[in-house]
Amino acid sequence: MAAMYIDIKNDILEKINSGIYEEGNVIPTELELADFYKVSRPTIRQAVQLLVDDGYLEKRKKRGTIVCKRKIEQEFTQKISSFETEMSEKGLVTDTNVISLKVEYPSDDVCSALSIESSEKVYKLVRLRYIDKKPNVLVTTYIPYELFPELKSVDFKKNRLYDYFSSQGNPVSRIKRKLETIKADETVSDLLDIAIGEPVFYFHSYGYGNGGRIIEYSISKYRGDMNYFVFDLYR
Amino acid sequence: MAAMYIDIKNDILEKINSGIYEEGNVIPTELELADFYKVSRPTIRQAVQLLVDDGYLEKRKKRGTIVCKRKIEQEFTQKISSFETEMSEKGLVTDTNVISLKVEYPSDDVCSALSIESSEKVYKLVRLRYIDKKPNVLVTTYIPYELFPELKSVDFKKNRLYDYFSSQGNPVSRIKRKLETIKADETVSDLLDIAIGEPVFYFHSYGYGNGGRIIEYSISKYRGDMNYFVFDLYR
Repeated sequence: MAAMYIDIKNDILEKINSGIYEEGNVIPTELELADFYKVSRPTIRQAVQLLVDDGYLEKRKKRGTIVCKRKIEQEFTQKISSFETEMSEKGLVTDTNVISLKVEYPSDDVCSALSIESSEKVYKLVRLRYIDKKPNVLVTTYIPYELFPELKSVDFKKNRLYDYFSSQGNPVSRIKRKLETIKADETVSDLLDIAIGEPVFYFHSYGYGNGGRIIEYSISKYRGDMNYFVFDLYR
Repeated sequence: MAAMYIDIKNDILEKINSGIYEEGNVIPTELELADFYKVSRPTIRQAVQLLVDDGYLEKRKKRGTIVCKRKIEQEFTQKISSFETEMSEKGLVTDTNVISLKVEYPSDDVCSALSIESSEKVYKLVRLRYIDKKPNVLVTTYIPYELFPELKSVDFKKNRLYDYFSSQGNPVSRIKRKLETIKADETVSDLLDIAIGEPVFYFHSYGYGNGGRIIEYSISKYRGDMNYFVFDLYR
């Protein structure tokens, strides 16, 4: 037989999942829950702690225990789509902060990723992307300059990079990605608003355009606490 | 112009990638490198630190600085294949430690994952899987008992679960996966031989057999420092 606090945990979880306890709102206090379930406060504390550990609840110093925003399903690993398109299909509001867009000579890594010489200039576009006002992913993108000489004048706060590629007659038709997981360093922590050492999804992506040429090399760091990725595989 | 230590870092990296400095072997000492590149030891230290940060080198107290084992490419998110089959195609040696295999009544989570009632028993199979003698992934698998009444007698140290399903006329033809990233807790740290708090790939998988029924629900925890996952997407 399961311990009492497991039953209580399951009951609270059901109330979260059914929306009785709403996202972002406080749940009843420990004392109220102890009265309701007719158990001691330590039992309630155990049940609540399990839900905190599982990411369903969060303890806030002044407000009490609140229901967490659930993680966002990302199909980044499943299909080729722009970030805004995918998120707006899910009913989420996105925003993009263009941290920098400049033209520079590529490092060895970027040369090798884009198959170019170190004398060929590239755009370096750094974007911080938000979902429902929270920073979600930091993306650094390298693009060969000679392929898109007019790109410098595009406002990527309003325009989607993949739409721009398409408008130039050179759409991305294939993407290879590599996924690692790393700990947030100080900069990532500051930009994504998570603690140093928290896990982050770390992608390297290669976008192929006309003639199978790599027209985009991107490094994306997704918050681990806000996202999950889905896969659907057939034999 | 790049700083001197960046050039040295790139030169050492090339020697690692080309195999001049071999996996598992020590590289020359700080003093030897300083002599060779005709720079100060702090400059060498900076270059080496970058490679340590990037996971190419590791400092060992007694031996010196060694070249790390590179991460293993996993196609777990890309195709349906057994762990041993995929790894042996890459020339890697695998081993499986069956930590437990028992029959039990399912928790609410397992009921919901397998779409069964709490009165229907399940197998719980816990396996720790090694690559080249290092623990790589911890997998807990739930399987409806009634579908495979003879499964209890299978030795999963030697037999592959997917081969067994096929041999029973009920192969997995589709898999849905969900990927999160979490920090290793004490148990995961002990089993996977990584520090507490290190990032771990955390998968939930649902395997579909005959008639679209879910015949397998698995939770897999892959070491973050040893693995990366690849995707190849087409529009």
